[in-house]
Amino acid sequence: MSEVGAIVNQINRVAIVGGTHGNEFTGAYLVKKFNQFPDLIAKPNFETVTLLANPKAFAVGRRYIEKDLNRCFLKQELQNQTLESYEELQAKSIQNILASSAKKVDFILDLHSTTANMGLTIILVNNHSFNLKLAAYLNYINPLVKVYRCSFQSFEENPFLNALCELGFAIEVGPVAQGVLKSTLFQQTEKLVHEILDYLERFNQGEIPSTNETLIMYQHLSVVDYPKKEDGAIFGMIHPKLQDRDYQALNPGDPIFLTFDDETIFYQGKSTVWPIFINEAAYYEKGIAMCLTQKLRVNL
Amino acid sequence: MSEVGAIVNQINRVAIVGGTHGNEFTGAYLVKKFNQFPDLIAKPNFETVTLLANPKAFAVGRRYIEKDLNRCFLKQELQNQTLESYEELQAKSIQNILASSAKKVDFILDLHSTTANMGLTIILVNNHSFNLKLAAYLNYINPLVKVYRCSFQSFEENPFLNALCELGFAIEVGPVAQGVLKSTLFQQTEKLVHEILDYLERFNQGEIPSTNETLIMYQHLSVVDYPKKEDGAIFGMIHPKLQDRDYQALNPGDPIFLTFDDETIFYQGKSTVWPIFINEAAYYEKGIAMCLTQKLRVNL
Repeated sequence: MSEVGAIVNQINRVAIVGGTHGNEFTGAYLVKKFNQFPDLIAKPNFETVTLLANPKAFAVGRRYIEKDLNRCFLKQELQNQTLESYEELQAKSIQNILASSAKKVDFILDLHSTTANMGLTIILVNNHSFNLKLAAYLNYINPLVKVYRCSFQSFEENPFLNALCELGFAIEVGPVAQGVLKSTLFQQTEKLVHEILDYLERFNQGEIPSTNETLIMYQHLSVVDYPKKEDGAIFGMIHPKLQDRDYQALNPGDPIFLTFDDETIFYQGKSTVWPIFINEAAYYEKGIAMCLTQKLRVNL
Repeated sequence: MSEVGAIVNQINRVAIVGGTHGNEFTGAYLVKKFNQFPDLIAKPNFETVTLLANPKAFAVGRRYIEKDLNRCFLKQELQNQTLESYEELQAKSIQNILASSAKKVDFILDLHSTTANMGLTIILVNNHSFNLKLAAYLNYINPLVKVYRCSFQSFEENPFLNALCELGFAIEVGPVAQGVLKSTLFQQTEKLVHEILDYLERFNQGEIPSTNETLIMYQHLSVVDYPKKEDGAIFGMIHPKLQDRDYQALNPGDPIFLTFDDETIFYQGKSTVWPIFINEAAYYEKGIAMCLTQKLRVNL
């Protein structure tokens, strides 16, 4: 893999974002905690700001009001004056807050949660070497941290909030139901946030923490939909033998779905893949039962 | 405990209801399965009907559109012509379908799911001896089945769909996130439905299956809200040591909440209680972090 990205000299402003999806409480309440106890995220050599990204959706405990906010950050859509749903306007407002030249942030950490058994996952949206090295460091100090590289090949394809800034990534924690705070995951997520802020502080001091020389990265391959009838109705669910097995090898012939009339559907691919986002609640409406990845060893 | 209820001679018509809450997929998809394969619930000596209770909420994957449907069945509200929200009208329509004299059902099974670790729970809304004996039978053949008696003392206090019929109860299964199908729980719930239908069939044949002579029942005592500030904002979550410990003894001095600034809040009650519905997503808006019960041994 080729490393990309401009050389980074100094991080001056960091954004911690939560509640981009209003029913993902871990990030939303962490932002509220940091607002109440700002000393927790204060660092001597950069400024940290927080943002509750979708306050209306958070207030009603839903992922979004009109449109998934984390699909509203395509550059051409942010520039399109005719797009006026709540989330499209909110995306423009967030762009103004985080990415306008006057108070542009250098690093965005966007906190998400999932009903899938994904533990602590870093979601990379680009191959910037700064992000890769930070991800490798986080995995080095806590091997349970996994690194997923999603499918976007270029900035222009990326509709996520993290598209606003080359540096940074999303954190996805699970399993936790929507609209629920699970204290163990809340604590693990907060610890990860502090480890990231500590790394940035030491980076600014010229002390780049040591890492592994390689990084295990789960590279997005494709998505798999639920088994559906012609009218679009689901007729099966994640197989018991696949449920909760995110990041574990799925081989050709392994069970993936169980139909409502108890027939097993097997994985028909030709090679081993590593599924993630298995049975994520928010992805039913997107037609995604899981994402398939390949497991890569990346030299840093 | 005194047994109550008129003598039951014959069950003629049974309703299996799912999707009373639109984001509780287990029951909704079981109803769809039974609609597709009606032979599964066909019995020689009674009729079985199915009902997807809140189709609009199910279509958008939300608990309800305007108002929790399972709080719309108070007798005086069903008779109140001025109540016209979607769910209030739907409740009247369901009353007409299930409880009008022409096609009145004798038994209602209402299928729910929860984010709490409640396994398979029978929720009794009255002390009718028929319901108690059936619950005892289900616990006898599967000791993992728990029986919860909620707080209603009389028919007039009960706003649940099960208020439409003296016989029957709700089944609550978990843990499962809202908007998700978990195949293991789907299968366990279906098995329980079949065990109930088999019992009703044998009851009609005069062969009442044998049961234990006593029943362990978790009797509702009170609800506990999350720790909240004066403005109503939550400042703590279920303690890691209480999470997932539904139906386990909670003693005075045991941890119940962890505040966002890492302080433990201990249970201040004077006697042992058995919490259930711990961290149920839908109950955040109701101000319920858990329900406390007492564990009773009931002679049948």
